[in-house]
Amino acid sequence: MKYVIKLTGKLFKRDNAGLIKEVTNIVLNKFREGSSIAVITGGGSVAREYVGLGNELKLTQSSLDTLGIEASRINALLLALALGNNAYLPVPRSIDELLNALGSGKIVVLGGLQPGQSTNAVAAIVAELMKADLLVNATVVDGVYDKDPRIHKDARLLKELSINELEKVITQSYGPGHYELLDPLALLIIKRSRIPLVFVNAFKPETINKALNFDKSVGTWVHS
Amino acid sequence: MKYVIKLTGKLFKRDNAGLIKEVTNIVLNKFREGSSIAVITGGGSVAREYVGLGNELKLTQSSLDTLGIEASRINALLLALALGNNAYLPVPRSIDELLNALGSGKIVVLGGLQPGQSTNAVAAIVAELMKADLLVNATVVDGVYDKDPRIHKDARLLKELSINELEKVITQSYGPGHYELLDPLALLIIKRSRIPLVFVNAFKPETINKALNFDKSVGTWVHS
Amino acid sequence: MKYVIKLTGKLFKRDNAGLIKEVTNIVLNKFREGSSIAVITGGGSVAREYVGLGNELKLTQSSLDTLGIEASRINALLLALALGNNAYLPVPRSIDELLNALGSGKIVVLGGLQPGQSTNAVAAIVAELMKADLLVNATVVDGVYDKDPRIHKDARLLKELSINELEKVITQSYGPGHYELLDPLALLIIKRSRIPLVFVNAFKPETINKALNFDKSVGTWVHS
Amino acid sequence: MKYVIKLTGKLFKRDNAGLIKEVTNIVLNKFREGSSIAVITGGGSVAREYVGLGNELKLTQSSLDTLGIEASRINALLLALALGNNAYLPVPRSIDELLNALGSGKIVVLGGLQPGQSTNAVAAIVAELMKADLLVNATVVDGVYDKDPRIHKDARLLKELSINELEKVITQSYGPGHYELLDPLALLIIKRSRIPLVFVNAFKPETINKALNFDKSVGTWVHS
Amino acid sequence: MKYVIKLTGKLFKRDNAGLIKEVTNIVLNKFREGSSIAVITGGGSVAREYVGLGNELKLTQSSLDTLGIEASRINALLLALALGNNAYLPVPRSIDELLNALGSGKIVVLGGLQPGQSTNAVAAIVAELMKADLLVNATVVDGVYDKDPRIHKDARLLKELSINELEKVITQSYGPGHYELLDPLALLIIKRSRIPLVFVNAFKPETINKALNFDKSVGTWVHS
Amino acid sequence: MKYVIKLTGKLFKRDNAGLIKEVTNIVLNKFREGSSIAVITGGGSVAREYVGLGNELKLTQSSLDTLGIEASRINALLLALALGNNAYLPVPRSIDELLNALGSGKIVVLGGLQPGQSTNAVAAIVAELMKADLLVNATVVDGVYDKDPRIHKDARLLKELSINELEKVITQSYGPGHYELLDPLALLIIKRSRIPLVFVNAFKPETINKALNFDKSVGTWVHS
Repeated sequence: MKYVIKLTGKLFKRDNAGLIKEVTNIVLNKFREGSSIAVITGGGSVAREYVGLGNELKLTQSSLDTLGIEASRINALLLALALGNNAYLPVPRSIDELLNALGSGKIVVLGGLQPGQSTNAVAAIVAELMKADLLVNATVVDGVYDKDPRIHKDARLLKELSINELEKVITQSYGPGHYELLDPLALLIIKRSRIPLVFVNAFKPETINKALNFDKSVGTWVHS
Repeated sequence: MKYVIKLTGKLFKRDNAGLIKEVTNIVLNKFREGSSIAVITGGGSVAREYVGLGNELKLTQSSLDTLGIEASRINALLLALALGNNAYLPVPRSIDELLNALGSGKIVVLGGLQPGQSTNAVAAIVAELMKADLLVNATVVDGVYDKDPRIHKDARLLKELSINELEKVITQSYGPGHYELLDPLALLIIKRSRIPLVFVNAFKPETINKALNFDKSVGTWVHS
Repeated sequence: MKYVIKLTGKLFKRDNAGLIKEVTNIVLNKFREGSSIAVITGGGSVAREYVGLGNELKLTQSSLDTLGIEASRINALLLALALGNNAYLPVPRSIDELLNALGSGKIVVLGGLQPGQSTNAVAAIVAELMKADLLVNATVVDGVYDKDPRIHKDARLLKELSINELEKVITQSYGPGHYELLDPLALLIIKRSRIPLVFVNAFKPETINKALNFDKSVGTWVHS
Repeated sequence: MKYVIKLTGKLFKRDNAGLIKEVTNIVLNKFREGSSIAVITGGGSVAREYVGLGNELKLTQSSLDTLGIEASRINALLLALALGNNAYLPVPRSIDELLNALGSGKIVVLGGLQPGQSTNAVAAIVAELMKADLLVNATVVDGVYDKDPRIHKDARLLKELSINELEKVITQSYGPGHYELLDPLALLIIKRSRIPLVFVNAFKPETINKALNFDKSVGTWVHS
Repeated sequence: MKYVIKLTGKLFKRDNAGLIKEVTNIVLNKFREGSSIAVITGGGSVAREYVGLGNELKLTQSSLDTLGIEASRINALLLALALGNNAYLPVPRSIDELLNALGSGKIVVLGGLQPGQSTNAVAAIVAELMKADLLVNATVVDGVYDKDPRIHKDARLLKELSINELEKVITQSYGPGHYELLDPLALLIIKRSRIPLVFVNAFKPETINKALNFDKSVGTWVHS
Repeated sequence: MKYVIKLTGKLFKRDNAGLIKEVTNIVLNKFREGSSIAVITGGGSVAREYVGLGNELKLTQSSLDTLGIEASRINALLLALALGNNAYLPVPRSIDELLNALGSGKIVVLGGLQPGQSTNAVAAIVAELMKADLLVNATVVDGVYDKDPRIHKDARLLKELSINELEKVITQSYGPGHYELLDPLALLIIKRSRIPLVFVNAFKPETINKALNFDKSVGTWVHS
């Protein structure tokens, strides 16, 4: 099996060392079973700190994105080091390096690649390049809700939906411009290559593990 | 002034040597006046040939994009060589190399950067990184029409429109998925950074020159 | 066994998808049997198109060569992608990258490397670096003829000749400066390292397969 | 004049945007006067966070250093972006890239380079490579004290001392292994090349400015 | 087992081809047994020649170090080529390339990395990155002596000592600034990570072999 | 004016520091007058030493060439460092890096590029890329002789000859395979681009200076 796992950058804090260790073990187990795995890490709080700082210094939007990308790469480096000699190093910084990494037979861990797109888009591109059997998007909540769960107490977790339904949820329920689940580029790629997708909770590593085993009792499953 | 020029890849054919020479002179003149200039070249017929060939070999969509990117880079290399010692070489292949090129004081010429996005998106990202005063998008027609000019004989050239109106024209008049003018990523970046944009005809180099001089008698001007 | 295969760039056209698929399968079969394989692709019609265009733009000879090299690299990329995860990526662009690729245990596919030399010379250098057991040069004709077969109807295919005899055929029968079979650098390297060499027809993939099995019923075999 | 400025990583927080802006202006002013300037940024709180996290994940000391280096590079990237087109990009990651940057005529901003050494050592190496006239080490305190100022209320700021006296202060007053001012490698290089050195307070940017003007009323000046 | 071997650059002379062949075989044997091995080569006489020449041309100390590093890399390249396809190529020139090499499953051979430090320091850093079980430092003498053996005829070979005792021997018996055994950075890293260390004689390859088998009858063993 | 200077590697010895200093000053003077200059350094005695050592270790011819290339690069690095901040660094190792260097406005210094060709061929390629007005080939003798001057006491220095006459002298008077003046690739490039060429004596730096001023009283001038 070939997997791409997107990990929210919010996981990468000192307090979450135990959770990161769990995720590391889940990835290593799957890898040792013979699976091909790529992990894309988000930028998290470090990204937000530097984007905020850059904003006050009046940097362009692309420059701010560049700072966020570097932040996501520290998270990628940490995870790659925690995976020991099983992960490709250094963290790929370009498509050329990514292609080399994907051919290495190692777990590939990377952060962002380019201004103007989220690490979700990177995850979709990597999934397409690998012909991944599943893209596991591990966020800060249990999956996709019919309304924004941070605002609406009665938001209901959706167990399964189509990619077109997901697109509607993203644009309608969360408001335009709120691409926390998937940005337009990620959507476009997932749609054009019909990449199977599931949203789970990175702070409950067991849901990542279950998703990798196609256990549909967790998360939100998205089909094309 | 800082300019980004997007050149359709369809220009890069042996028969168009004269047109390319004209474009080269226009770019060189502006550069010698003290302007900063980046040129992004599309993939054109070579891209189409290899994407078609890759398709028959059942390559993934991202792999096909990678072939198109390399094709666009030959066009970039040709243009850079034609600009003599005034252009940065080698053609940037990553964001790191692009940042180096943009700081070099030379004309920067590049093609695509990443699967999943068009060279229009690259042009928008470069324009944002440079804080460009104008993004000149030189295509195969005179500008943006109210209907697809290849189908409707009565299609009317629009002299000016807002970026939101452009978005509607792209999605409604040309049909969904027809991102020949701008793909979603390009649109997103142009909107978020309010990059001034004009569409002109690459096969009438004089319209590029007029656009660089903000002569609104040519092309379609898009404001944010 | 260690093989280097030189493929004429003329093969890389959309109409030849079936032939390319056949070549891909032949290479994959040999690789899966445990052989080390490097494939060097020529520039073909794209190279000619851009060299012609560059010529009209009055580029230097080395600049024209550079365009041809990039064209040959698109062919290399296409073939590498068609070989799936068995080929080294990205396509090596320098000796340092080539050395890394040769050590990767993967099929190495590359185009040109440097102005002033043909992809035949690259093939000879790679064969020398790998200590290849055979260099298969797959061209547009069945092998080496006693006269130029495009001019002389009675040209006779030579089954076997020495490298010194080949040198004479190249310089005398084809006229000086016509290095379509081997350029001087390729000749020099093949001679100094006594690399076994056979010319076959890339448009008859079975002849490549037979050559890899040292079946002397096809092509022209050259001994040192 | 040629300057190297070492900035403590602790400066790089959102709350310090104003201070960073001041430092940026000081650097730009000196650069526009014709000086050559390199700035080395420390890792600060992001480095500490990730080193702590890596520690809990039982990474080797060199791996922890690698995380700290990446953290220092985000600070370098932020500063380089804030310096606009006057700074070399991308942030140098190796000696080869550093040598290229130093020859670019731009302000060079970098973080760490290698496990086992502090960014103070990097600053010393860069100063040596540039034959810098002054190395300004901007820390969190006003200079070097006769005792650790965080422990001893009566610690006295030293206005001037020799490099040998500094070495004694570092090893005796601060205790062995506390290389907050200079690590052994930095000391070795400063001594062997007699690099003029001054310690000032990064949180009082005016002291950096005064130091660049050789105004000895601020900081601690170290002579060889 | 994981080994790092530091080879004195003085070994790399034409007259020592036989010795180098022996060392090559020892390394290959251990590698084929399943061990991970990195070899760091010193600069030797070529380094001295160019440092001397650079000195007369009044280059900075860091520039001289850069020349010495390149000399050590020729030695690394020679050894890597002699190890055939078992060694990683090209010779790593930066930490990023070193990390890639260490993950390749091949024997990693490198020279220096950075001005201001010896190849002994590089060996210590590599040992730390690899979590090496043993660092074999193969010099021009049989191990560490209680006095400088080149001066004192009655110098006695020490069979075993602690890293702190070694530090004293280096600074007291050989005089300050004579870091021929270990420079301060190497010492610091070996101490902080308690890397097991043995000094043997590179000109007696059998002692390298014995050291790799933890045969304490040869060399000087250093414990933390 | 644009110049390429090929310097014999035999110049780079400690004893020749004074001569190297003279050459450095000549190059700097021309550069400061506004000329574009590239210098290609041969491998000299270090190359010979390592090629000899590699030979005894039974390396392939291409591997031996690789060692020679690295040796020539130390000479290039030394010269570049001696030229101070006027030379491009790091020493280009590929065509991509060479193209970047040639656009930098700095003096470009490099050694070899690829197995199978001499540094004379590199000099010819660089001259072609730069459209050089003159290629100065500084060897160990005063120019080209009608016979091998090391054998024949009555060998006569030729003041001027055509490139075709030179080709005859090389192949007839010095014997086949003795490409000390120019190898076949260098000849081919000089002929196809009609690069003006002069041979002078590197050990008499004044002859280099005179050649750069087109003073035909020194050396052997070759016209196309």
